[in-house]
Amino acid sequence: MKQIVECVPNFSEGRNVEAIRAIAAAAAAVPGVKVLDLTSDPDHNRSVLTFVGEPAAVRDAAVALVGAALPRIDLRRHRGQHPRLGAVDVIPFIPIRDIDAKECVALAREAGAAIADRFGIPVYLYEDAAASEERRNLSNIRKGEFEGLAEKMKNPEWKPDFGPGAPHETAGAVVVGARMPLIAYNVNLGTADLAVADRIAKSIRHIGGGFRYCKAMAVDLKDRGIVQVSINMTNYKKTPLFRVFECVKSEAARWGVNVVGSEIVGLTPAEALYEAAEFYLRIEKFSPDLVLETKLMKAD
Amino acid sequence: MKQIVECVPNFSEGRNVEAIRAIAAAAAAVPGVKVLDLTSDPDHNRSVLTFVGEPAAVRDAAVALVGAALPRIDLRRHRGQHPRLGAVDVIPFIPIRDIDAKECVALAREAGAAIADRFGIPVYLYEDAAASEERRNLSNIRKGEFEGLAEKMKNPEWKPDFGPGAPHETAGAVVVGARMPLIAYNVNLGTADLAVADRIAKSIRHIGGGFRYCKAMAVDLKDRGIVQVSINMTNYKKTPLFRVFECVKSEAARWGVNVVGSEIVGLTPAEALYEAAEFYLRIEKFSPDLVLETKLMKAD
Repeated sequence: MKQIVECVPNFSEGRNVEAIRAIAAAAAAVPGVKVLDLTSDPDHNRSVLTFVGEPAAVRDAAVALVGAALPRIDLRRHRGQHPRLGAVDVIPFIPIRDIDAKECVALAREAGAAIADRFGIPVYLYEDAAASEERRNLSNIRKGEFEGLAEKMKNPEWKPDFGPGAPHETAGAVVVGARMPLIAYNVNLGTADLAVADRIAKSIRHIGGGFRYCKAMAVDLKDRGIVQVSINMTNYKKTPLFRVFECVKSEAARWGVNVVGSEIVGLTPAEALYEAAEFYLRIEKFSPDLVLETKLMKAD
Repeated sequence: MKQIVECVPNFSEGRNVEAIRAIAAAAAAVPGVKVLDLTSDPDHNRSVLTFVGEPAAVRDAAVALVGAALPRIDLRRHRGQHPRLGAVDVIPFIPIRDIDAKECVALAREAGAAIADRFGIPVYLYEDAAASEERRNLSNIRKGEFEGLAEKMKNPEWKPDFGPGAPHETAGAVVVGARMPLIAYNVNLGTADLAVADRIAKSIRHIGGGFRYCKAMAVDLKDRGIVQVSINMTNYKKTPLFRVFECVKSEAARWGVNVVGSEIVGLTPAEALYEAAEFYLRIEKFSPDLVLETKLMKAD
């Protein structure tokens, strides 16, 4: 079975269709790379490309994408609602199949070094690839944005992990890292009382004392006359979906409220669903190798 | 995404390694066919080959396997514990991906017609491919075995679906059909009392008034000091795992017994686990397209 890594570069162009296509095409042109999605937001003036493949191909595609963005994006003239530090702003590597977080960190370091060497752009490593706790959080690194970067980099604390000690004139800096797949997971409650969703969101999220890899907020679903606990699961292996779901259910019951449903927004790794089946069906010695499709993929 | 069919021919040779390999190789040699498993049982004097691929390739591989078995197996001299009617005894086609039961029935008919035409072997269609209710059940067709076949076929009721009205001299007949993937699923109970497992098995299985696509029996796990409800799920789409599990749990509770675990023996389609996650997490508008791996397979 081939190793598979996902890469989701965010770049600072969401309006010029020709430029967006050319930048995405540079990644897609690397043999073995498969593009799964390309989404552009004109208000944010930003695009998000999702592609997968074997580690070396995905790393090379990320570097090629930076090369194609360089002549096409000038941050000195860039306006958009979304905060950004670079022409290519963020490049996360995400383990998908037969690869662990450590290997993705190594991949992020290789890509970061290549971007700095080849294009003279400073590179910061974030999340699992971060060299220190302060650099783990993307918003810490991005604080001040492109416009404040030259000043910020004068502080020795913000010496980049790779590349020059000052911003690239048109491309700023690139934040490269490794992280687990994120699952956007919402739980819908049988009440119109937003305060209940708010209390539950606060009780399950990390910042409020809840699960370590869980972010949550209350949302009013006015069309349906109900409320929702909207959740980001940032590491489904360590904080599994079923545990958070059961916690929401039990907290809701305390207010006399039922869980009426849940939603997966975007994609989930199969493993997060296997874990739920394993938990509820109490399966002994479960392994993904018990799944026919795993065997099919291994035969490829 | 390519359609995928599984085929699991059972043939009457479990001792002569050279012959077994040659017979399996004939199927494996068809382009696009992937062999997942080959298991031989010397006591049964029988082998089971599991392979997958696109429909036409899998059909041709099944026919090629019969061609390779013909000169290598002589049922007149075959002895083994397992009942059998033919040199190649049974050939089921099983829908795996992007293909429904009806298409597998058509495939079984095509393979059956080709086997009869090319090799002059009578062919019976069984399970979903059966032309009548009496032929649905494999053991009905196989009753009397190879030794009783010439006599049985004199009865017009046992005219084969394809091919001559008498057995092939050395190869007997072949039973070809289509069926859903089978899931071998056991539920373990926190008691040593076999009578509890027996009562539950009788209450959940089709024959006793239980679920339509569920076979079950009680098993004593002496090593662990507990008992088990051993289940064959013959159509997980119509009788899902989670429903049978919940029924076992509720029946066990009536005797004051807990479910301590469950086991999947062999392989399960991913969908059976997705269904469990969907049920317990109450996921709204679930689709396999929400799963990253589905998207990866579609990109292939």
